[in-house]
Amino acid sequence: MFTRLDHVGIACADLEQSILFYRNTLGLEVFHQERNEEQGVVEAMLRLNGTDDGQSSYIQLLAPTRLDSPVGKFLRSHGPGLHHLALGCPDVDAVSAAVGDKRMNVLFRPPRPASMGSRATFLHPHECGGVLIEIVTAAG
Amino acid sequence: MFTRLDHVGIACADLEQSILFYRNTLGLEVFHQERNEEQGVVEAMLRLNGTDDGQSSYIQLLAPTRLDSPVGKFLRSHGPGLHHLALGCPDVDAVSAAVGDKRMNVLFRPPRPASMGSRATFLHPHECGGVLIEIVTAAG
Repeated sequence: MFTRLDHVGIACADLEQSILFYRNTLGLEVFHQERNEEQGVVEAMLRLNGTDDGQSSYIQLLAPTRLDSPVGKFLRSHGPGLHHLALGCPDVDAVSAAVGDKRMNVLFRPPRPASMGSRATFLHPHECGGVLIEIVTAAG
Repeated sequence: MFTRLDHVGIACADLEQSILFYRNTLGLEVFHQERNEEQGVVEAMLRLNGTDDGQSSYIQLLAPTRLDSPVGKFLRSHGPGLHHLALGCPDVDAVSAAVGDKRMNVLFRPPRPASMGSRATFLHPHECGGVLIEIVTAAG
């Protein structure tokens, strides 16, 4: 079903400050940056390594563009920190169907556009031991 | 400095229940299980993929063996969920020194024994935008 640990999403108040921390303190560089108006976030992907399914693993830094976006609400209730865990698979539609068949509430069906042209859906932390789980298929 | 996203640590109240969730709902199997009395945890590593530095990426499920352990305290204050992000490197001693030179407070110097014979240290969430960051070198 899943073939890689795709990324870990981290909520931060100020994207540029977070990018500086990861670059200056940990030596990690921005691989890609984008703005997603629908989700109300700006984000930076920091690439860590290649994976044996032909893709990569990243840290994803997420900052809200508006207070009422999901990441804005998360920051207000939790403060900055670990936000979600993204598991990569070759076919997010098939995995969504398989997980839905187990009576899990799959949040977006069909999956919606996500980082770097990927397609993704989510499982709610209430059903996953407190962890927001993203299910993602890379572009191409 | 870092060559892979080594694992994501998840705090859970009941290890066996969490293992069942990840197996039955997400199809992920236990690769390794151990008990660390010093840290007061039982843990299960679920392997996701190989990485291009010759190692692997995992989900690490962590449950406390006593209420006053670090994971026990985390559960009491935060509830179950994402606990830490572990970045892999070939030489945890060298990375600890390099990060310490940037005036970061490296929690364990020398690093201490961690999962599957690895050696690891940590950076405090107060200094890392709310994220507990583990720096780890695999065994061998």
